[in-house]
Amino acid sequence: MIKIAVDAMGGDFGPEVTLAGADKALERQPDIYFLLYGQEEICRPVLEKYPRLKDKSVFHHCDVAIRMDEKPSQALRRGRSTSSMWLAIEAVKTGEAHAAVSAGNTGALMAMSKFCLRMMAGVERPAIAGIWPTLKGESIVLDIGATIGADANQLLDFSLMGGAMARALFEVARPTVGLLNVGVEEIKGQEEVKEAGRLLREANLDTIDYFGFVEGDDLGKGTVDVVVTEGFTGNIALKAAEGTARQIAEYLKMAMSRSWLSKLGYILAKGAFDRIREKMDPRKVNGGVFLGLTGIVIKSHGGTDGEGYAAAIKVGYDMVRNGLLEKIEADLKKYKDLHLEEQATQDDKATG
Amino acid sequence: MIKIAVDAMGGDFGPEVTLAGADKALERQPDIYFLLYGQEEICRPVLEKYPRLKDKSVFHHCDVAIRMDEKPSQALRRGRSTSSMWLAIEAVKTGEAHAAVSAGNTGALMAMSKFCLRMMAGVERPAIAGIWPTLKGESIVLDIGATIGADANQLLDFSLMGGAMARALFEVARPTVGLLNVGVEEIKGQEEVKEAGRLLREANLDTIDYFGFVEGDDLGKGTVDVVVTEGFTGNIALKAAEGTARQIAEYLKMAMSRSWLSKLGYILAKGAFDRIREKMDPRKVNGGVFLGLTGIVIKSHGGTDGEGYAAAIKVGYDMVRNGLLEKIEADLKKYKDLHLEEQATQDDKATG
Repeated sequence: MIKIAVDAMGGDFGPEVTLAGADKALERQPDIYFLLYGQEEICRPVLEKYPRLKDKSVFHHCDVAIRMDEKPSQALRRGRSTSSMWLAIEAVKTGEAHAAVSAGNTGALMAMSKFCLRMMAGVERPAIAGIWPTLKGESIVLDIGATIGADANQLLDFSLMGGAMARALFEVARPTVGLLNVGVEEIKGQEEVKEAGRLLREANLDTIDYFGFVEGDDLGKGTVDVVVTEGFTGNIALKAAEGTARQIAEYLKMAMSRSWLSKLGYILAKGAFDRIREKMDPRKVNGGVFLGLTGIVIKSHGGTDGEGYAAAIKVGYDMVRNGLLEKIEADLKKYKDLHLEEQATQDDKATG
Repeated sequence: MIKIAVDAMGGDFGPEVTLAGADKALERQPDIYFLLYGQEEICRPVLEKYPRLKDKSVFHHCDVAIRMDEKPSQALRRGRSTSSMWLAIEAVKTGEAHAAVSAGNTGALMAMSKFCLRMMAGVERPAIAGIWPTLKGESIVLDIGATIGADANQLLDFSLMGGAMARALFEVARPTVGLLNVGVEEIKGQEEVKEAGRLLREANLDTIDYFGFVEGDDLGKGTVDVVVTEGFTGNIALKAAEGTARQIAEYLKMAMSRSWLSKLGYILAKGAFDRIREKMDPRKVNGGVFLGLTGIVIKSHGGTDGEGYAAAIKVGYDMVRNGLLEKIEADLKKYKDLHLEEQATQDDKATG
């Protein structure tokens, strides 16, 4: 049984979405047990609508709900030990839950997760990893917004953690990893990215297959399983791509309603349009994974619906079942061991 | 008469595209006179196909053509004073041409442009400004690849130069300018971006209307006339958006050819599809403008066709006609004067 803690109050619509999503998830993954955190008077009436969920969950009342516009520091002051968001994360810390899911405000969720769960040994900074739909299927992109800027060692950590997540999610033995850059030649780009490339090439790891640099258009092509960048660029690239998808959808809508002929054409090709919509459906790839912490926390989009929330829960479920944390720990240890061995060899040379 | 120097050898297809593009441009802007630079034996036979262009141009032979994969330093060593790329730029320096256009390799073109034309007084670093199709029309985005990283003063220079370009291109009196960031709140993002925001707000300029921070999805929405960012993020955002557009086009193609019904629907709605294709046509927005130099240089996509090349020439033509350089110089001076006045006031306080 996989136990998942849900911040029922998080997101733009609260329990109407989070509990609907949890119920949907149960339908598909019947071995989940939910720990629900929320304000009783708001959540109870909604929970009554989902007998299946009611049966496979325990509800915990809490007084505080973190607002979507609250600053991380404010949320931490106001909501520590009392809010639905905090309690869901704390359930992971105490071992009552295997993973926590929240659609609440990202900054607050990350601040609380760091504060409550702490960083994994040897990891300096966390990352948020997102799932990106590509022409080949799906890729993992990180960091999409946990931090601003990253040095070479942090980019290396991101590569290892993203690789572990790819093995947990896609079940590939040795996922390909690329560093996002402005060109594929070795001399191009930020110093940090070039240095991370050198480190990854020299390490020659058996857990990931370092591909080299990739560019912005490789994201949609699915050139590699994992695309690594720092959070500023990653967040902007993600939103630029989402914005472009919406822009084209808008053009399509306008163009298809322009004449009787195009309206008729739209009706005939509706099945085809539905397939595209499904492929680009942001709900299907909902669920950002916080990497680098001692527990699994999943961030759902704030504005998603029950379907999207169920997808975020599914991501957490997969991460637990496929041993994400164990994989990350093992991979980090392997790299650090390799690194220490190398240093010892160099010490030999120096003292020998 | 607007005189435009063309690097006829630049790009993936050389004179077949550049001369076809120049001829198309002449058809639409008959007051252009072209200075063509290229290898005689390759260009002459192509030029013979375009009597109109032959009549309204002068051809200069040169021995060297810069390769698409040449490093900037190598191109500068090998092609200085001898290559078609260099000679086109030099024509701008000597005043023989008002602007230069090249589809050659970006790094080499920028290195040669900086070397030959030098930076405009008071500008530290150049930027490449691109035209971005939006739901509202078009925006200007810079920097899309001239530099890596930028401090607050450089972002401020980019804002002023982008604003001047918007006035030259869109003929708006006081274009809106936004700084690309990971959130719209003042506390979010890179320090450089936050500092640039403070400078722009305090300056309260009458040449541009500082909007504040914008996010990646504001690019496609057309929230502001000018979006400012440093070159690493700008380049990746641009390519991520282009990649997404191609990805959706690919989905559409696959979906539309899947069944007889959808094929029929496609035929009926073909007019609508053509309109979307036209809206997203990268050839229409071809032409990156090098800003911050003492002359106008336009970079065309290397893989474009005659239609796209004509669009790049048109951008150069508009920049000349609408006095881009004069606008940039005046705006920079205005800001610097304002800044010095402020400093003098502060000196009063210090010494008074």
